[in-house]
Amino acid sequence: ARKDGAALRRALAPWLAEDLAPHLADLPVEQLAMLFRVGPPELVATTFAYVPLEVQKRLLKLLSQDQAAELLNSLPPDDRTAFLNELPLDLAMQMLALLSPAERQVAQALLAYPEHSVGRMMTLDYVAVRPEWSVREALDYIREHGYDRETLNVIFVVDTSGRLIDDVRVRRLLLSPLDRPVRELLDGNYARLRPTDDREHALELFRQFDRVALPVTDESERLIGIITVDDMLDVAAEEATEDIQKLGGTEALDEPYLTITLGRIVRKRASWLVVLFFGEMLTATAMAYFEDEIAKAVVLALFVPLVISSGGNAGSQAATLVIRALALGEFHVRDWWRVMRRELAVGVLLGLVLGSIGFLRIALWSAVSDVYGPHWLGVAGTVGCALVGVVLWGSLTGSMLPLVLKRFGLDPATSSAPFVATLVDVTGLVIYFSVALVLLRGTLL
Amino acid sequence: ARKDGAALRRALAPWLAEDLAPHLADLPVEQLAMLFRVGPPELVATTFAYVPLEVQKRLLKLLSQDQAAELLNSLPPDDRTAFLNELPLDLAMQMLALLSPAERQVAQALLAYPEHSVGRMMTLDYVAVRPEWSVREALDYIREHGYDRETLNVIFVVDTSGRLIDDVRVRRLLLSPLDRPVRELLDGNYARLRPTDDREHALELFRQFDRVALPVTDESERLIGIITVDDMLDVAAEEATEDIQKLGGTEALDEPYLTITLGRIVRKRASWLVVLFFGEMLTATAMAYFEDEIAKAVVLALFVPLVISSGGNAGSQAATLVIRALALGEFHVRDWWRVMRRELAVGVLLGLVLGSIGFLRIALWSAVSDVYGPHWLGVAGTVGCALVGVVLWGSLTGSMLPLVLKRFGLDPATSSAPFVATLVDVTGLVIYFSVALVLLRGTLL
Repeated sequence: ARKDGAALRRALAPWLAEDLAPHLADLPVEQLAMLFRVGPPELVATTFAYVPLEVQKRLLKLLSQDQAAELLNSLPPDDRTAFLNELPLDLAMQMLALLSPAERQVAQALLAYPEHSVGRMMTLDYVAVRPEWSVREALDYIREHGYDRETLNVIFVVDTSGRLIDDVRVRRLLLSPLDRPVRELLDGNYARLRPTDDREHALELFRQFDRVALPVTDESERLIGIITVDDMLDVAAEEATEDIQKLGGTEALDEPYLTITLGRIVRKRASWLVVLFFGEMLTATAMAYFEDEIAKAVVLALFVPLVISSGGNAGSQAATLVIRALALGEFHVRDWWRVMRRELAVGVLLGLVLGSIGFLRIALWSAVSDVYGPHWLGVAGTVGCALVGVVLWGSLTGSMLPLVLKRFGLDPATSSAPFVATLVDVTGLVIYFSVALVLLRGTLL
Repeated sequence: ARKDGAALRRALAPWLAEDLAPHLADLPVEQLAMLFRVGPPELVATTFAYVPLEVQKRLLKLLSQDQAAELLNSLPPDDRTAFLNELPLDLAMQMLALLSPAERQVAQALLAYPEHSVGRMMTLDYVAVRPEWSVREALDYIREHGYDRETLNVIFVVDTSGRLIDDVRVRRLLLSPLDRPVRELLDGNYARLRPTDDREHALELFRQFDRVALPVTDESERLIGIITVDDMLDVAAEEATEDIQKLGGTEALDEPYLTITLGRIVRKRASWLVVLFFGEMLTATAMAYFEDEIAKAVVLALFVPLVISSGGNAGSQAATLVIRALALGEFHVRDWWRVMRRELAVGVLLGLVLGSIGFLRIALWSAVSDVYGPHWLGVAGTVGCALVGVVLWGSLTGSMLPLVLKRFGLDPATSSAPFVATLVDVTGLVIYFSVALVLLRGTLL
């Protein structure tokens, strides 16, 4: 094994760990364990970060305690936080015990930040230089201390007490005369995050400023870590997943669909399904209220699903568009009137389209059969008018609900397609039968 | 004005264009126009890329033809492509005419790639060095030619005919002895894109390899451009928006909600709404088929919305989870059996939960009132059993439909919550009334 190890190390020597790691991470777990026992520590640590969680866990079990300790100690702090965060508490504690006192302190400090906060994603592998240094001194310092990944696109400038003065792109250093002081390259213009900021805020800043790394500072503006753009692509994907799952009427799974336990997925789906079911029970109440009308004119019952689902569909469209626009910052809650005016117009037009189709469908059918009875014209008129009302109402409800939720500090994505459909189903029934009572009085009712 | 211009240029001198631009882009359009008339060309071009499309258009109208031409010629090619792409064809042609012959050729070549392709997002501002150069020569070359943004984190190594040999991080150059040849820094390991690749493919590669820039090569492996990670954050947001809008049962808007014209938003929403309406018409047909049963037992009609919407909700959950898991690559179409097995279990459990609640609700109500008549137990049993069947059926339909769509090369996100709900509504009615025919024969029916 020792000979294999030496050969492996020779074969790996010309590669940069961060280039090789994504490829190695696809190896079967046994081969990974072998690599991890003999491979260079930096490569091992970088590769570990690319391995999926399930494999990471099995891998650590295949290593000796010493090997596991060495690996955990050499992991970049942000990757280690991400890994420990996914473990059950007891296992996480065992892992923390394997760390050296210094690394344990770092890990505990990062884990103390709330989930989905910037602090949890920080890495400490940044390069900080002093403003009075020359460009040459700064580049020499980087050449000596820049062995960590993720750091070298942006350099941070701090004062003697560690307070952030500015960030400066490596490009700026490279393009400047070597004897110029770093101070003269600064523009005093930087964006910074707090460790307690939500990671969505970080995502916004990255999108706005096109940076590859942003500094994180504490209350006294001391530089305590950085966030890098490669983590932001993962954040963007996770945040979109959460929103999409909520829009589908389920709690965010936070785990892959195929590996989440049956108990957990049922709980996450049942909670919303039961809430919606209780809401939908009101349709039975509403229908019972119009039971006499249904008994007199059974033909009315035939169009109940058609009418109420059209309102639900229009509402689901409006809710989805408004939720996404809110997430992208296209408008704010205070712009509700512009949204409502828009949905008033759209809702009327969409209602007229569906109402006309519904009217024509019943009229045409009645021309060739008598399935809708002698008062088909009244029925067609009722369905047509009810559709205009229900689609308009659905569009308004669907567009306003996310704004109301956001106004009260709730997540707008909670107003999912099924949630809006349920709301609109109940009110849609009332609209439909009220129209019927007006239009069909004296004929069918 | 000339004095103002000189003062402005002096004030702006210490800033790096890419740091200042995001802030300047928020200025009112008149001040922007003033800045654009006198500001340094690089700053003007960078700022223009950060300005929203509507403001970009107004800005160009405020500039003289010469000023507009200078601006367009100095825009980075990828930002120019993005801008021209959003213009109506006639306006885009006018803009193309303002370009110098060389820039026009570049712009036309980029615009010839399909929308949402890698070619449309390419930038040409990369630095390519030769393998036989020393690190010192490479760094000197960068210092001389690296004045463009977005380029300096990764350097590309090409042979005499421009074929890509490898990419190398600037970090690697900075950490190496100055007299070492570039050739010895190479690991022969790089990912590359084709200009015709879909931008989603680029997003996957960036996510997988944690790069800040990836090279684009033609069929003979010649380097023709690069893609940078900052554009990927925008791609991730746009792709998520498309998926979310489709899931909500509307065509992707491709424009902000508040600025898209009324005609366009109505067309995009009406198309799907009408399709769903035609589908939902089948509920009226199904209901008509059971008209005699409804006439005999009006109480059955009361629970129609409750039963069918529960199936739709369960189906919308399943569809959303499967669509997102497919988009994240968690599983593939060939894993359909694992998904179906999972939904069988989840569907039965969720159905039992809702079925029990439905049964109890009717039973309890009947204990205090006679709204459901003497045969309430049969009605409660019918609703309970139908709910189990409908929720299970909804879960199966919702989970399989995206897989079927994907299998036939269609976008799985087409199986939106409203689409699945419509499918399940029709079949849910058949399930409900069939259960009723079995359980209530001899009593109500």
